[in-house]
Amino acid sequence: MAPDPTKAKSTRRPRAATPKGFRDYFGAEVSERKLMLDQIAAVYHRYGFDPLETSAVETVEALGKFLPDVDRPNDGVFAWQDEDADWLALRYDLTAPLARVAAQYRNDLPSPYRRYAMGPVWRNEKPGPGRFRQFYQCDADTVGAASVAADAEICAMLADALEVVGIDRGDYVVRINNRKVLNGVMEMAGVLDPADPSRFIHERGIVLRAIDKLDRLGPQGVRDLLGEGRKDESGDVTKGAGLNAQQAEVVLGFVAARRDTGAATLAQLRDLVQGSATGLDGVAELESIASLLAAQGYGPDRIVIDPSVVRGLGYYTGPVYEAELTFEILDDKGRKRQFGSVAGGGRYDDLVERFTGQKVPATGVSIGVDRLLAALRAKGRVAGSTPGPVVVTVMDRDRMADYMGMAADLRAAGIRAEVYLGNPKNFGNQLKYADKRGSPVAVIQGANEAAKGTVILKDLILGARIAESATLEEWKDRPAQVEIPRADLVAAVRKMLDQ
Amino acid sequence: MAPDPTKAKSTRRPRAATPKGFRDYFGAEVSERKLMLDQIAAVYHRYGFDPLETSAVETVEALGKFLPDVDRPNDGVFAWQDEDADWLALRYDLTAPLARVAAQYRNDLPSPYRRYAMGPVWRNEKPGPGRFRQFYQCDADTVGAASVAADAEICAMLADALEVVGIDRGDYVVRINNRKVLNGVMEMAGVLDPADPSRFIHERGIVLRAIDKLDRLGPQGVRDLLGEGRKDESGDVTKGAGLNAQQAEVVLGFVAARRDTGAATLAQLRDLVQGSATGLDGVAELESIASLLAAQGYGPDRIVIDPSVVRGLGYYTGPVYEAELTFEILDDKGRKRQFGSVAGGGRYDDLVERFTGQKVPATGVSIGVDRLLAALRAKGRVAGSTPGPVVVTVMDRDRMADYMGMAADLRAAGIRAEVYLGNPKNFGNQLKYADKRGSPVAVIQGANEAAKGTVILKDLILGARIAESATLEEWKDRPAQVEIPRADLVAAVRKMLDQ
Repeated sequence: MAPDPTKAKSTRRPRAATPKGFRDYFGAEVSERKLMLDQIAAVYHRYGFDPLETSAVETVEALGKFLPDVDRPNDGVFAWQDEDADWLALRYDLTAPLARVAAQYRNDLPSPYRRYAMGPVWRNEKPGPGRFRQFYQCDADTVGAASVAADAEICAMLADALEVVGIDRGDYVVRINNRKVLNGVMEMAGVLDPADPSRFIHERGIVLRAIDKLDRLGPQGVRDLLGEGRKDESGDVTKGAGLNAQQAEVVLGFVAARRDTGAATLAQLRDLVQGSATGLDGVAELESIASLLAAQGYGPDRIVIDPSVVRGLGYYTGPVYEAELTFEILDDKGRKRQFGSVAGGGRYDDLVERFTGQKVPATGVSIGVDRLLAALRAKGRVAGSTPGPVVVTVMDRDRMADYMGMAADLRAAGIRAEVYLGNPKNFGNQLKYADKRGSPVAVIQGANEAAKGTVILKDLILGARIAESATLEEWKDRPAQVEIPRADLVAAVRKMLDQ
Repeated sequence: MAPDPTKAKSTRRPRAATPKGFRDYFGAEVSERKLMLDQIAAVYHRYGFDPLETSAVETVEALGKFLPDVDRPNDGVFAWQDEDADWLALRYDLTAPLARVAAQYRNDLPSPYRRYAMGPVWRNEKPGPGRFRQFYQCDADTVGAASVAADAEICAMLADALEVVGIDRGDYVVRINNRKVLNGVMEMAGVLDPADPSRFIHERGIVLRAIDKLDRLGPQGVRDLLGEGRKDESGDVTKGAGLNAQQAEVVLGFVAARRDTGAATLAQLRDLVQGSATGLDGVAELESIASLLAAQGYGPDRIVIDPSVVRGLGYYTGPVYEAELTFEILDDKGRKRQFGSVAGGGRYDDLVERFTGQKVPATGVSIGVDRLLAALRAKGRVAGSTPGPVVVTVMDRDRMADYMGMAADLRAAGIRAEVYLGNPKNFGNQLKYADKRGSPVAVIQGANEAAKGTVILKDLILGARIAESATLEEWKDRPAQVEIPRADLVAAVRKMLDQ
């Protein structure tokens, strides 16, 4: 049978759905994030950092393979082949593009180059609850400054940024450590040979990731990973670094080296890496950072030396830092726990070298935008909704120009306002619409009011309160509805909004 | 010969380059665009529009094929296959994602739904001079409003947005037309049969694109495309719609139907489509829009009915509009020409129906962000640079804490400031750096000053002026360098900045 040409054309309808692991952001979700990023940008700007916006798309070779989860190599990015055979990919962070920019424009950029960047990054990972394949990062980095003064500056700026967006002093701490100290400890534990750094590189990777999981696995879990390996609740086995008990103790001694004061912690660390030039250099850098910060008033109430911080990324070469929120929230199971990390970073002196062959020192921080926003919501620092517009209802569709004129008058006075643009037939629908919009005031003008030159204002916030308390008694002095001359529209609406 | 394992590891260096057709935005390029978008967003917000941020990635089926350049189908998007076999792509505009959102959340969104969206879109096209494969759009749309009051509102809001960012009244005009009128003209020309709309659909596509190129090709070029076709300068032939001379005259009569007043243009249009119900309906809609706008004071100095505007997109179903900047600039060859279009849009009542099977009226505008920014630059409305930070130089690297303290004091007073973080050995390099940063003031404190408790401020702006005029004479009353007590640092810098 010949195909029916009219049927052949009716293809199935496309699904109206975001791709798996992606989501949309509506209204206040967008404006609250924007406000927070604007506040952070103002801090970065005041510190002399310049904005940089790279394209979302990079060549795969420029991006390199530096995804934090090295357990899952090869995957992790969204990539495709361009027509001219280049492989392109969406950026997975803002650091790799910065390294590319620092190399590409090395003759034009000021050196040191302080830049900040804010925007989405993409990860081709299995999505999970609260884990999306597109999310925002907000980074600040200094490229070309070898001095740890650059690291200290970033830590101070991070503290300032957290306070500016609404995290109170006392509710956060910036914890600092140094990969050089860790490397010194690795030397002491016999898994790093300064004469041949390529030996034990695999084992050191496991050690690094094990320490990074201390929060989640506890000391015994880390001990297992340092040794033969660890079996989790599901029975899955993670292979360990193969350290013997004595070696493992050296590493665990490092992780637990934090003391009551910064000076005591530094003394303990110096003790642990005695004999490793790299390790001692790292301790001296930490001391330097702490004293620079203390001189500016950033004391241990805000910034502490904490050897348990290592950061998972493989490319850090010196100081590493992390901002942790210390207030408690309830987790999924109703248990209290600390909010945890919202930002982290460190020094990476080798990333630009990939392109140029020349060492370029760099250090920087990345704020997890969604995490920080969630923290502000938990603290009640963002409202979760924005005030809706004044809604001018439509009683008579022939007088649309009058209604649009009312909205225009309100807007000219700086008041957010709109005319109902749906089918005006059912007035109840208009009020339901105003309610859904979170509208504070509805403006009504039927034929009677038009003839008299008046309008009716309905106070929807008051109306909602009256409906809630189910008694007019307490509101009787304040009418939820007033009739006023059309000429007084702006003044009367403003008065109602200010109440 | 066995491969040398040390050599096998040394792979070639990656290229430090943006992919072809992509670019990076630095400093003022980022902040100027942001300022402009913030100003536009404030206007949209005041009109009751809510922000929406969809993900950059959509399923290919949800995006559909609505790229403006239908001459080049199939290509045009960056797409790849996801692991679970879905084809994903980067969005090529902000309208297709809105249609998907309007369908996906149709039970939750207010109706009508006014939303604005700003962000990058991606086109997999051949890059050219000034033509990039990632660029910003800035859209506002109303979904669910059948009334042309929604179209009128968008046009008024577009005019407001242009003025807010710095395009003076008189330097722009919003031109409105209606696809229904064009369809009426098509009926009159015999290329649209209301009883069988699928006939001549190919020819009508050619007519639409031909009219859209009027600016570039002139009336004879359009006439050729309406008829047998057109050979361009390179000898390439574009096939025409195959209209005979009489049919072509009907179409050209429509394009040239604009008269001195809106009323005269409407009368002319009504005359042209006499006999087409659709055409007459379109003229009535235009009349309605014009009178709604006139009632709010948007007269022909800002918004005009212009039948030569058709917009290239195939999916428009009613009113279409375009914002044109009317001031002149010099083109590449030094010839004066009008700046041209910076925004356009129209009514598209079928895009949501793709998903749901139900008609959902919608209308909206898209601002070409880069074009509008270029216009503001041409008018001198954006500076092209932002003031650099005060640079605190480093004379003695052991006193880094003191220098960082100075910068902190300045920042605490709201002054943008930074410490030089490069190698401080060569002081000349520090001043060169300050110059490259556009720094207004350099702060200097050597051992002598430190001992006296003073700092030296160098007025770099004044210094640059003196260097330009090559004489100190005219500046002698204002020293380019002052020594002040350390305690007066903030006040003295502020004074220098205010001069």
